[in-house]
Amino acid sequence: MELFANVKSSSKQIARLTSSRKNDLLKSIATNLDRFRKDILLANEKDVENARKLNLKSSLIDRLILNDKRIDAMINGVNDIINQDDPVGIVESGSIRPNGLKINKVRVPIGVIGIIYESRPNVTIDAAALCIKSGNAAILRGGKEASFSNIALGDIIKKSLVDIGLDENIVSVIIDPDRSIMDKMLRARGFIDLIIPRGGENLISYVVEHSLIPIVKHDKGVCHVYIDQFADKEMAISIALNSKVSRPGVCNAMETLLVHHAVAEEFLTDMVEIYHSNNVEMVGCERAQLYKYVKPADESDWSTEYLDLKVSIKIVDSISEAIDHINKYGSGHSDAIVTENYSNALIFLDSVDSAAVYVNASTRFTDGGEFGLGAEIGISTQKLHCRGPMGARDLTTTKYQIFGTGQIR
Amino acid sequence: MELFANVKSSSKQIARLTSSRKNDLLKSIATNLDRFRKDILLANEKDVENARKLNLKSSLIDRLILNDKRIDAMINGVNDIINQDDPVGIVESGSIRPNGLKINKVRVPIGVIGIIYESRPNVTIDAAALCIKSGNAAILRGGKEASFSNIALGDIIKKSLVDIGLDENIVSVIIDPDRSIMDKMLRARGFIDLIIPRGGENLISYVVEHSLIPIVKHDKGVCHVYIDQFADKEMAISIALNSKVSRPGVCNAMETLLVHHAVAEEFLTDMVEIYHSNNVEMVGCERAQLYKYVKPADESDWSTEYLDLKVSIKIVDSISEAIDHINKYGSGHSDAIVTENYSNALIFLDSVDSAAVYVNASTRFTDGGEFGLGAEIGISTQKLHCRGPMGARDLTTTKYQIFGTGQIR
Repeated sequence: MELFANVKSSSKQIARLTSSRKNDLLKSIATNLDRFRKDILLANEKDVENARKLNLKSSLIDRLILNDKRIDAMINGVNDIINQDDPVGIVESGSIRPNGLKINKVRVPIGVIGIIYESRPNVTIDAAALCIKSGNAAILRGGKEASFSNIALGDIIKKSLVDIGLDENIVSVIIDPDRSIMDKMLRARGFIDLIIPRGGENLISYVVEHSLIPIVKHDKGVCHVYIDQFADKEMAISIALNSKVSRPGVCNAMETLLVHHAVAEEFLTDMVEIYHSNNVEMVGCERAQLYKYVKPADESDWSTEYLDLKVSIKIVDSISEAIDHINKYGSGHSDAIVTENYSNALIFLDSVDSAAVYVNASTRFTDGGEFGLGAEIGISTQKLHCRGPMGARDLTTTKYQIFGTGQIR
Repeated sequence: MELFANVKSSSKQIARLTSSRKNDLLKSIATNLDRFRKDILLANEKDVENARKLNLKSSLIDRLILNDKRIDAMINGVNDIINQDDPVGIVESGSIRPNGLKINKVRVPIGVIGIIYESRPNVTIDAAALCIKSGNAAILRGGKEASFSNIALGDIIKKSLVDIGLDENIVSVIIDPDRSIMDKMLRARGFIDLIIPRGGENLISYVVEHSLIPIVKHDKGVCHVYIDQFADKEMAISIALNSKVSRPGVCNAMETLLVHHAVAEEFLTDMVEIYHSNNVEMVGCERAQLYKYVKPADESDWSTEYLDLKVSIKIVDSISEAIDHINKYGSGHSDAIVTENYSNALIFLDSVDSAAVYVNASTRFTDGGEFGLGAEIGISTQKLHCRGPMGARDLTTTKYQIFGTGQIR
């Protein structure tokens, strides 16, 4: 596609910009978001209207809606990214070799990033800002439900690029109602360097199966909290509650609560009441079903991301059973143990094969901001390239720059 | 496949071994390579005999052959890896967040690495040793030409694992004459975490097109040396000669020489004589064909990895033309400029989009050992995960370990 070639060519320009020029562009985007607020809201209304006509799920419509508060949040997000450090140019390591060669390993932009996402239009601005900060060109392919909103936001980004005197292809927002452009993106070897899919399981597995381009996937979060035999009861209740109810619709919310059988009675008797009074639906294993409100869970529950006020509960006989359960059914996102036992804490930290493993804290902290990395483009649940919250640094790669004085081998 | 499940299960054991236990295993492999030297040589003779019967290319047979010297080299390679630092457990970064959470980003093994390679049987030992050092289980799928050699080497590794009291599946050497097991490897999601293909273009592109598992590819090296208008002539000749002839069969050897037109006559008149006396075959663009011995190049020459005493020569009008040529036809491996001009050196370093970019040095230095990284499993020509020489560190990933005291969000 001609578009891909144009974006590829524009990537050379953004890659070489100084931090201050990139920040000028980001400031321009923030200003234009404010200035063209009404256009955004009008476009968004059309999307929301269409979504209502099509009887889409209310949670989807909620994610689709923009209002002044959400536009303010977008603007604040861009401003936060302006204030972050520029990852480009950082010398990761460097040394003088015995033969006198000076070898530096330097952070450089990846090139062209293709981002494939679903209904939330704010991702368009977040993703654009992070790609700009890290010196990358971007092809942003959002969900068809947000088409009008994305066109409006894409126009604002283009206008900002042109205002600053840059190639307007640096950020290209694509409208692709039938996945045909997405299919072309997944095969655009030589034009797109990295594909980031963000969304539901269907989208992710489609991209994994069809992409010829390296991907960093942001998969579901089937997160666990394990209440160890040696847990502090009060802390256990606080973490089990917070991990589930503070924001059930996000990927770092807990979906499965594992409880050591030795403390099950003492802990669960209270916990189920607290969940119940917080409107949390409960399903569980046979032993968990002995507690009030707990309905039977089936096999599929253990690997389900509810994204809702619902929890699956399993009683286990040992920490090993808890760890094996997590490694089998979890998604490698975020998992926590609550314990006062030193050895169990270390065993859990070392044996759970996830991006973020917690002792005595809520899984809800897995987030670029909370980790001090700045804004994130998502949480990588794969092991290659980057794992966990993916910030501007992870949108770069490295290159060896070697300064010689005529060395031969 | 049952084998994949067994290797996956064994990966937990190797991941948790201390450095000294892993080094014990490596020492045992080195000892057994020496002790069972005769068995290896006998097995290798069968492979070489078969290869001769099948009239395989002499370069392929040469790569296949093992002798005492090459077995010594394998043993030395293992000993070098013993002496390297263990990448597992390194804390890449860590801090205490404002809420008191202690967050560490720690290097951990990737899990199970699948390595797909061609005829050289020494790769079996190199790859096994690097995977062991980095705490990974390995599935090693070598070329069918080396089957008997690989069976013998695989037995030695298994014996060493058993001698040390470890799971014998930790390193599994696979014999796969018809690619059927390779096809299964490429689809073994949940069992193999990373596929590394090493070999010719056909193998690499087959793997890229069929793998559902993340890959780090070690592609061809179409490396360039650009003789700038401001090059020191003597240095230019020395680097252009060394990059081509010191070891033409490896990926960091130069394939294309680019020469600025302003110095072409002075430089090339001598250079072609030197190449000729070193038995280097020359093809070139129209202007280069004016020089002695230079035959016409066609379009395909510019992207060909000769791996032989052959060079393509192009005369360019500017440094930008040289850079554009490299970014268009190169493979992103290693490229060098020879210049005394400060600005041109910086422009080249920043604009050439390759894993290793040199000023005034031979491309032949791109190598884990020369870069001070220790042994390498290959040179990554992709941008994701790692780029350039891939050592033990790059066979690990990271994980966040978070120490809390009851924090909720």
